[in-house]
Amino acid sequence: MTIFDKLESEVRSYSRGWPVVFDRAQGSWIYDEDGRAYLDFFAGAGALNYGHNNPVLKQALIDYISRDGVTHALDMFTVAKRDFLEALDQKILKPRDLDYKVVFPGPGGANAVEAALKLARKVTGKESVINFTNAFHGMTLGALSVTGNSMKRGGAGIPLVHATPMPYDKYFDGAYPDFLYFERLLEDSGSGLNEPAAVIVESLQGEGGINAARLEWLRGLSELCRRHDILLILDDVQMGCGRTGPFFSFEEAGIKPDIVCLSKSIGGYGLPLAITLIRPDLDVWEPGEHNGTFRGINPAFVTAAEALRTYWNDDALEKSTKAKGERVGAAFTEIAESYPDAGLVAKGRGLARGLEFASGELAGQVCAAAFERGLLMETSGPDGEVMKVLPPLTLTDDELTKGLDIIGEAVRAVLAK
Amino acid sequence: MTIFDKLESEVRSYSRGWPVVFDRAQGSWIYDEDGRAYLDFFAGAGALNYGHNNPVLKQALIDYISRDGVTHALDMFTVAKRDFLEALDQKILKPRDLDYKVVFPGPGGANAVEAALKLARKVTGKESVINFTNAFHGMTLGALSVTGNSMKRGGAGIPLVHATPMPYDKYFDGAYPDFLYFERLLEDSGSGLNEPAAVIVESLQGEGGINAARLEWLRGLSELCRRHDILLILDDVQMGCGRTGPFFSFEEAGIKPDIVCLSKSIGGYGLPLAITLIRPDLDVWEPGEHNGTFRGINPAFVTAAEALRTYWNDDALEKSTKAKGERVGAAFTEIAESYPDAGLVAKGRGLARGLEFASGELAGQVCAAAFERGLLMETSGPDGEVMKVLPPLTLTDDELTKGLDIIGEAVRAVLAK
Amino acid sequence: MTIFDKLESEVRSYSRGWPVVFDRAQGSWIYDEDGRAYLDFFAGAGALNYGHNNPVLKQALIDYISRDGVTHALDMFTVAKRDFLEALDQKILKPRDLDYKVVFPGPGGANAVEAALKLARKVTGKESVINFTNAFHGMTLGALSVTGNSMKRGGAGIPLVHATPMPYDKYFDGAYPDFLYFERLLEDSGSGLNEPAAVIVESLQGEGGINAARLEWLRGLSELCRRHDILLILDDVQMGCGRTGPFFSFEEAGIKPDIVCLSKSIGGYGLPLAITLIRPDLDVWEPGEHNGTFRGINPAFVTAAEALRTYWNDDALEKSTKAKGERVGAAFTEIAESYPDAGLVAKGRGLARGLEFASGELAGQVCAAAFERGLLMETSGPDGEVMKVLPPLTLTDDELTKGLDIIGEAVRAVLAK
Amino acid sequence: MTIFDKLESEVRSYSRGWPVVFDRAQGSWIYDEDGRAYLDFFAGAGALNYGHNNPVLKQALIDYISRDGVTHALDMFTVAKRDFLEALDQKILKPRDLDYKVVFPGPGGANAVEAALKLARKVTGKESVINFTNAFHGMTLGALSVTGNSMKRGGAGIPLVHATPMPYDKYFDGAYPDFLYFERLLEDSGSGLNEPAAVIVESLQGEGGINAARLEWLRGLSELCRRHDILLILDDVQMGCGRTGPFFSFEEAGIKPDIVCLSKSIGGYGLPLAITLIRPDLDVWEPGEHNGTFRGINPAFVTAAEALRTYWNDDALEKSTKAKGERVGAAFTEIAESYPDAGLVAKGRGLARGLEFASGELAGQVCAAAFERGLLMETSGPDGEVMKVLPPLTLTDDELTKGLDIIGEAVRAVLAK
Repeated sequence: MTIFDKLESEVRSYSRGWPVVFDRAQGSWIYDEDGRAYLDFFAGAGALNYGHNNPVLKQALIDYISRDGVTHALDMFTVAKRDFLEALDQKILKPRDLDYKVVFPGPGGANAVEAALKLARKVTGKESVINFTNAFHGMTLGALSVTGNSMKRGGAGIPLVHATPMPYDKYFDGAYPDFLYFERLLEDSGSGLNEPAAVIVESLQGEGGINAARLEWLRGLSELCRRHDILLILDDVQMGCGRTGPFFSFEEAGIKPDIVCLSKSIGGYGLPLAITLIRPDLDVWEPGEHNGTFRGINPAFVTAAEALRTYWNDDALEKSTKAKGERVGAAFTEIAESYPDAGLVAKGRGLARGLEFASGELAGQVCAAAFERGLLMETSGPDGEVMKVLPPLTLTDDELTKGLDIIGEAVRAVLAK
Repeated sequence: MTIFDKLESEVRSYSRGWPVVFDRAQGSWIYDEDGRAYLDFFAGAGALNYGHNNPVLKQALIDYISRDGVTHALDMFTVAKRDFLEALDQKILKPRDLDYKVVFPGPGGANAVEAALKLARKVTGKESVINFTNAFHGMTLGALSVTGNSMKRGGAGIPLVHATPMPYDKYFDGAYPDFLYFERLLEDSGSGLNEPAAVIVESLQGEGGINAARLEWLRGLSELCRRHDILLILDDVQMGCGRTGPFFSFEEAGIKPDIVCLSKSIGGYGLPLAITLIRPDLDVWEPGEHNGTFRGINPAFVTAAEALRTYWNDDALEKSTKAKGERVGAAFTEIAESYPDAGLVAKGRGLARGLEFASGELAGQVCAAAFERGLLMETSGPDGEVMKVLPPLTLTDDELTKGLDIIGEAVRAVLAK
Repeated sequence: MTIFDKLESEVRSYSRGWPVVFDRAQGSWIYDEDGRAYLDFFAGAGALNYGHNNPVLKQALIDYISRDGVTHALDMFTVAKRDFLEALDQKILKPRDLDYKVVFPGPGGANAVEAALKLARKVTGKESVINFTNAFHGMTLGALSVTGNSMKRGGAGIPLVHATPMPYDKYFDGAYPDFLYFERLLEDSGSGLNEPAAVIVESLQGEGGINAARLEWLRGLSELCRRHDILLILDDVQMGCGRTGPFFSFEEAGIKPDIVCLSKSIGGYGLPLAITLIRPDLDVWEPGEHNGTFRGINPAFVTAAEALRTYWNDDALEKSTKAKGERVGAAFTEIAESYPDAGLVAKGRGLARGLEFASGELAGQVCAAAFERGLLMETSGPDGEVMKVLPPLTLTDDELTKGLDIIGEAVRAVLAK
Repeated sequence: MTIFDKLESEVRSYSRGWPVVFDRAQGSWIYDEDGRAYLDFFAGAGALNYGHNNPVLKQALIDYISRDGVTHALDMFTVAKRDFLEALDQKILKPRDLDYKVVFPGPGGANAVEAALKLARKVTGKESVINFTNAFHGMTLGALSVTGNSMKRGGAGIPLVHATPMPYDKYFDGAYPDFLYFERLLEDSGSGLNEPAAVIVESLQGEGGINAARLEWLRGLSELCRRHDILLILDDVQMGCGRTGPFFSFEEAGIKPDIVCLSKSIGGYGLPLAITLIRPDLDVWEPGEHNGTFRGINPAFVTAAEALRTYWNDDALEKSTKAKGERVGAAFTEIAESYPDAGLVAKGRGLARGLEFASGELAGQVCAAAFERGLLMETSGPDGEVMKVLPPLTLTDDELTKGLDIIGEAVRAVLAK
């Protein structure tokens, strides 16, 4: 009986599909304690867009630690935070003509979401929020209330209220006009819909099954929010930081959300960091009205700033992500077409890609077959029916080729049964 | 206009009292960018019990990063996590005869609390929770619901329900029997109190004003919970990891809570880490029912394990903390007695100490006067009326002497006005 | 200044549109204190299906009072209650092959709804309920939560939660399949919809704007509920007791709801009475778990029983209601066709009929014009845009002719402007 | 198998203790169908303060019905409503210098409470309400939330939130200062108590066990509310209309609640009627924001007005109630003193009187023994441990003597066992 079996709660999940003990990692690769290498198309569920232990960031991190740079500082001013804010301003906000203030809401994505919801409610004086089918926003009570997954919702142990789910893009396969029900309910004073403070949305749902909203749908949603004085919260925790190509997943849609949540890869190196970007006129907090211990992880500021300067000084990463994403998309489409009776569907945008199977069982078997062949990837979607890949954006073309080969083999191995 | 003024939300608070830009830190000292040194009696609000950039932990951390140890791993098995679990088991749980399983609930203390509340509700099928006056448990919606501060509660923007506050120890200065109202409500089937799933309590309230519950009160609470089949959640986020002397703040009371929340100093180096310890029979989670991106920050496992092995192999730290705590207590009592008309009250246990003033204004002025003299400390309590010190447990006797001298001067400077 | 102005709260509404003081009433007529007669096409908002002071019921009532029959008896057994239960069983339940138990939930329709919702939640262990756009179920907190009107919801002063509105029949003018969104959300475990205990529905929405659900829609809803183990609560408070022809408004659809709410005309004479009919296997209440003072108004039992025996012994009333309803429908259609540019729409079924105008202002003017001409009727719908008539089912053909004439004139007078 | 067994829900309760079928009633007596007479010390749970079928009211009622006075009129102006408002103004409000506006909230006491809570929340913009241990305010969701009984609360099927119970007077037998905990929580900004919109209180708890608050406690509560800008809602549904002597139960305390709820005996004859009296400046409702079908039961207005004119023109009833109440109190004290080991406690004020037994079982046996001897009374209190009598205020001295004799015998019969 290992110490894991003895001590770790049954709530653990990833270790069930990948029952080895990992030790080292570098770039697109992670190694178990026996030295076996795995190509990582999971990448910390989107937290490792720049790969494991990225050498540029690693050097900055070791330098900072070595020189005794402040590690923990809550919301005190620090040199490292200043450096991060400047990089964010110069590399990200200014070039995109985005005028946001930055909230440091706590260490993880759920904190960014909690802060966004609190602020939206405080500003508007309304309690209700609109979320979307198959949304995922986190596990703390506020974030969980706007999350779709019924098993995770059930974990709350109290009724989750104040949120009403609306159909995400293509929920009915395009058979009906966008926002049909949503806007009708808003306009009908007898609809029974509590007037919403905000809409919270992902531009591409990762956990929900790699559902990529069309850009015109996002634009339509943004316009609907403006028409009805509803704040638009864009949860870019998983799909931001270049995952779909541009830094923000919503850039191509040409919209400017009122509030944006970032976490996961914003820290660059896999260290916890989250920020909530807010329209300046929404900045009505009292000092300390939202606080928390881990809002100033300076080593994460260091790697975050370094990542912004290294990867977002030009459009090289964006272009490469799109190009690689196209390769994955083409490969998945080809796989889907090779099994015309299996009902496979290629999904996604940029390097957030999925292949939908007829069942969660099949998708799970493909992931298991890939793991046997040295590749990490997980399933997503309400029934786990989507094989999901989120490789590091920095993977090489050869690594991508190798990964796609393994995936092809794994699918074959499963569907051939 | 600095980048902080331009970009950071008005919600920031510590930077208001300490308007300098910090750069480096070592042990009990933190330095601003102009090289000025500050003796840190704030210590990351309890996240830096082993001091800033503790050299033993720093070496382990740099070694781990240098050898490309896995940084980010969700709840996968890793060598670093195994090492942490083993250290926790051998240095903490076994010697104290504590039989807990470990949940990794997310990166911060609020996550530990959210997981505890979810689990208590799931296990019992009840929704209601009892909290205490002036409790602080965090800023996410579940944790905020059981937090006392009305300004912070107001930030939620929705009614915070499912919690009923009971008087903390000494709330009426001992004039009435403990748990008088609480137990009466429980026993009276007509009381209107929703039957509680759990009680959540701090054994010493830090944010609430350095209120140290008596050990017999804690025992009484534990027995009351057992009598009424209520789960006891001990939030040791700030007061655990040796802050009051023993590793767990509740050890001296001889109680065994059903669920224990740890964070802040458990990571050792100020990196985000949180754990929720649960009675093994409560481990009824479904795999993945509670999850999150930052549940496996391996650099924090490394420093956490190293801290446990370094400081909890014997009772040296516990003894030294108690001894230093006594010195602080004696010094504060002396200050209080020097100003017999000022109504000062010395409070606390171990190295969680406070000096209560007649008003928040006075306490704030003392902290400001201390800052001018090169010492960081903050206020707490519902009106900020308690000057609160949480120095690193590892501070030297000379540093303690110096700190107490500065505090003495600061009090004099303010009360002499 | 009248005593009404001086003492009665501003919440009063009907007296604003009909600013006279009523005194006597008989059959289809109500008289003000100056002796002016008004033809009553409002009929107590559906509480007076058998007309004002129906002579048969009046005689039974006076006899009962005169002989000192018990008036007030909570849920004690009484001769009058027995008589009512027997009449209900023999005249209503048995002939329709309906197997229900009877809850006396309190004096009004909202009580019937509150009891229905409580029981559905108790039986299923779920909290959430599905309601429909433009539903009206009452003003107490439970009933208000499932009511659509935003002004009335706003009166609650707390967020109304636990209910999610779905589109009522023809909400999109038949452009989309029935229950499209509803069933998709139920089947998708990631939809974020809390699993519902029950659906609550009116088969024809009176307050919502005389929206008559198609029978196949009702059947579809009933089947959907059965497929998903959701209890179907049919609120027949306004549309039951023959308003649409048959005793229950859902009879023609051939469905058997799990729970049925009746009030308004069930008492026969306008005295408060309400009942909740429940499937026998749902009768899991503890004795006294739901109670209340006015659950046994015996004079109302007397008139209720007499009404059942007088009007539901054969199908004469049902046929006459349908025939008269057809006349109203034809007249309204003719009016609508006379003003092809005005966008009028004739609505309804049985003797619950409406004429929709382009605005609430117009519909209100028509009602005012009718009042001037001696006819009472009110508007309904989210913007008050529907002129609504609910005449006594017992009105004569001549009275109907006269009423329709007045309505024709009133419409002309308004639209001619 | 009777029709009751076959058709009536198991939720019925009174018929279990009194398993006979009642038929007629007059004054203090109710008769079963076999002609057996029962002296009624239950009196409709307080709805029959003027006795069954009071001949004065009966005549007015029959006259009104006979002349076809309007029966059902929602909130239209009627001659009968005007008459009631005038009687209320002249006989009740003016002589007591009370300046209230009248809301007709629906037919029963729960409606009066629901309207009070809604208005308090709307006016203050706060959601939370303070209730008291062992309070009873009704069974609809809003009223149930502020009711204490756990079995009845459990019937809701959803968590009842937004209310926090405080100890009612003498909850700790006077051992602690009044409002100790309540006011401390209000004054402490860190207490975690949501700021309350209102306090809802009964001046004597009937269902809660005949707990009579001391007048100074009521005054203290009223002053506390004023100090903290909390609205005081006095639920006089059961204890108003002279039950404790004066018309309002709070008169002797000299307080003026902001909102008063009346129902039960306000209608005089046992017909449903309820009113909510509100301070004029609180009358901020929109027209129709709170409505309902049975807000204008004109036969009840008729008997209500007649009762006010007949019984409240002078202080004869008040004096007689107090005198009779003293007799009951003396008799109960004597009984208690006769069984010094049984721990009996005489309770109450006016003609709301109780005798507390050591257990609910004993109190129930006494009520059963009294029923066998021809007297109706019920138990109350959280465990049904209080034998409760609420005889008609109009009972004769002989009837009172007879009733007390039966009670004495019943107690003897039970305690002698």
